[in-house]
Amino acid sequence: MTIKIGLLGLGVVGTGVAKIILDPSGRNSLLNEISIVKIGVRSLDKSRQIDLPPNIIGTDLESIVNDPDIDIIVELLGGLEPARTLILKAITNKKHIVTANKAVMALHGDEIYKEAYIAGINVLSEATVGGGIPIVKALKQSLGANRIESIVGIINGTTNYILTKMASTDTKFETVLMEAQALGYAESDPSADIDGLDAADKIAILASLGFGIQINRNDIYYEGIRGINSIDIKYAKQLGFVIKLLAIVKKVENNTSKKLQLRVHPTLVPREHPLAHVNGVYNAVLVEGSPLGEVMFFGEGAGSGPTASAVVSDIINIADALKKNTIIDSISPSPHRINNNSYEITSIESIKTPFYVRFLSKDLPGVIGHLGTMFGKYNVSLKSVVQIGFQGNLAEIVVITHHVDEGSFRTALNKMCTLEAIDCIPSVLRVL
Amino acid sequence: MTIKIGLLGLGVVGTGVAKIILDPSGRNSLLNEISIVKIGVRSLDKSRQIDLPPNIIGTDLESIVNDPDIDIIVELLGGLEPARTLILKAITNKKHIVTANKAVMALHGDEIYKEAYIAGINVLSEATVGGGIPIVKALKQSLGANRIESIVGIINGTTNYILTKMASTDTKFETVLMEAQALGYAESDPSADIDGLDAADKIAILASLGFGIQINRNDIYYEGIRGINSIDIKYAKQLGFVIKLLAIVKKVENNTSKKLQLRVHPTLVPREHPLAHVNGVYNAVLVEGSPLGEVMFFGEGAGSGPTASAVVSDIINIADALKKNTIIDSISPSPHRINNNSYEITSIESIKTPFYVRFLSKDLPGVIGHLGTMFGKYNVSLKSVVQIGFQGNLAEIVVITHHVDEGSFRTALNKMCTLEAIDCIPSVLRVL
Repeated sequence: MTIKIGLLGLGVVGTGVAKIILDPSGRNSLLNEISIVKIGVRSLDKSRQIDLPPNIIGTDLESIVNDPDIDIIVELLGGLEPARTLILKAITNKKHIVTANKAVMALHGDEIYKEAYIAGINVLSEATVGGGIPIVKALKQSLGANRIESIVGIINGTTNYILTKMASTDTKFETVLMEAQALGYAESDPSADIDGLDAADKIAILASLGFGIQINRNDIYYEGIRGINSIDIKYAKQLGFVIKLLAIVKKVENNTSKKLQLRVHPTLVPREHPLAHVNGVYNAVLVEGSPLGEVMFFGEGAGSGPTASAVVSDIINIADALKKNTIIDSISPSPHRINNNSYEITSIESIKTPFYVRFLSKDLPGVIGHLGTMFGKYNVSLKSVVQIGFQGNLAEIVVITHHVDEGSFRTALNKMCTLEAIDCIPSVLRVL
Repeated sequence: MTIKIGLLGLGVVGTGVAKIILDPSGRNSLLNEISIVKIGVRSLDKSRQIDLPPNIIGTDLESIVNDPDIDIIVELLGGLEPARTLILKAITNKKHIVTANKAVMALHGDEIYKEAYIAGINVLSEATVGGGIPIVKALKQSLGANRIESIVGIINGTTNYILTKMASTDTKFETVLMEAQALGYAESDPSADIDGLDAADKIAILASLGFGIQINRNDIYYEGIRGINSIDIKYAKQLGFVIKLLAIVKKVENNTSKKLQLRVHPTLVPREHPLAHVNGVYNAVLVEGSPLGEVMFFGEGAGSGPTASAVVSDIINIADALKKNTIIDSISPSPHRINNNSYEITSIESIKTPFYVRFLSKDLPGVIGHLGTMFGKYNVSLKSVVQIGFQGNLAEIVVITHHVDEGSFRTALNKMCTLEAIDCIPSVLRVL
């Protein structure tokens, strides 16, 4: 029995997938029973880094999802359309789906899983988050005995590369971004990465897996790294922190309410924290569950090899299920998790978190007292106030707060701005 | 359909497993269909941290594995016997097995998997390595698309706790060991942990999963941490390293031979390496594969909660397969990996690795030249020679070599001892 694959997309990941399938020696032996029969691409003119029988490549993507001979559609097109439509069409045609498309799964996962469930079809999406890191499967299966408390991840390699490089070379954002673009670590239009949208897509996927609910992508607060100043990276370091773009989902439960925090933003991470050492293009996801405690998954979050590894591992899983004439326990994102879960999503204003604030001030001795009083009025309790440097004749004061209500904190900050001694507030960052 | 469990052992892990199964809310919903019907213990007199119907606990372990009503035997007895015999008996009786017993699986895994294969029975053992870290399943499934190159782990929490504490408090081994025993992090007879046997059992299991072969436990070179001196931890730190007990399996392949290194020993790990930040009782396993690159799994390596999480995740997997009337693709440790794999195990003498050596010397200016010459004669190339401290009127010299043949290196060291200027060689450690 040969399992027949239709591959949609032959970019870096598609090429990586094809290379693994064409060279199965030393890998999982099921690969010997898997064959790519059709590949759909947008243009036949592009030069390819792989030798393939020319007759299997074509531009008619729809004919591939309609081909009765094909068992599994591997969707590596990226973007919302035509990916979504092709996936749904393939499901109607009873083809199993492997996808690396985080945008489609974050926005249309609900619809896709529902259709797949009705059709009795597997949809696997390991490659949507964390490249080769097997976090999707772990959340679906291995961690299933646990009550998940939180998932915190560095899940965008571009921003982690930029922040790491800014820190190690004391270089400003714009310069490092250009370098990253030259090296291929950032796209020519980098906004999906650096504004936090990509990480938001991915945390939507992880949150739905971990908490057994469908996440409305618009409920996720996100903030990117364009505003990160290398001076804040330096001061954070002096205070024992590194700055990382974190994607966070966290359960806050009490007797009367079940709430979820969903947020993506640059964050000061204490140096002793496991995520603090995740540098460069590496990704990591830290899961906290009960009774498990903490587990962290770390690896290359992007690139042809790691992503292709995740895609092929999904293909192998489906091939295994097809051979046994069964279905994987993953026709929906987390079918065995309690389905009556419902969480209220906490608005960013009502989240309690510590903050880092940098002030520029004219009148040092007076101003520290003023700051303390003003914050006190708004119930913002301070952990430390440090006069840390100078810019011209303005003193730089860095404040780290205890856990505070973001709403009260922002109100207090607005009041600060009216103080004569405060010249400006160049940076406000959350602390883990 | 209720899946019926017979639990062998009700120590900390057994109690943790029972607690999860008795309190399924908010966890995988399959737990609602799982029931513990019998528990076998050695003594009924022990007080238990859990409320259980008294009639389900008994001391006749054999009657449990023979009970026709039971679907899954969960073996948490530890030790080789009666665990091995009971597991084999249960398999003959067509019961599926979940075990946390690394000693049995490292020594008798071959026999157990063979019998399980014949009987068409699942044997899952996620909890044998790394507590709650889902590394066993990842090696069996998610990383299956890859050719595994190496697996390097910190997989013994006791030794990692001791080494971390020695480093952070500059305290000697014996003192920290006693503290660890008082805290319950080390056994009253600590030798299985601190002499490296426990880590050797676990790397045997990981190696067989990653390379698709059965490992003869006696082929693993192991060396514990009794000889680690806090002065070496200090000097290693000055040179940019931390000392960790690593368990290593590594493929060394060329056109004419396929070899595996299998070893457990204290190792100098460069500070930038991901494993360098794994501290305290935490475990981590770093897998390198092609085309995956590196992935690391990190978490609490022992304790009731994490280990019970792994055991219950295996129970859920089997329950899921039973409901679907199928079998998991893990009736043997790595069924789909190429079974014609055969590797020669490299003897420790022929492994090439860098070394750290500390010499005590009488006559400093002459001796560095002598050392260089002597090492040169035996083709041992040096990376650095540092006169790093004093002990009384003896100078301490630390040498770090490039990759060298352990055999040649040991011969050179023996020659050094005959030099008049060399007082002694207190420490020889491998470098990652």
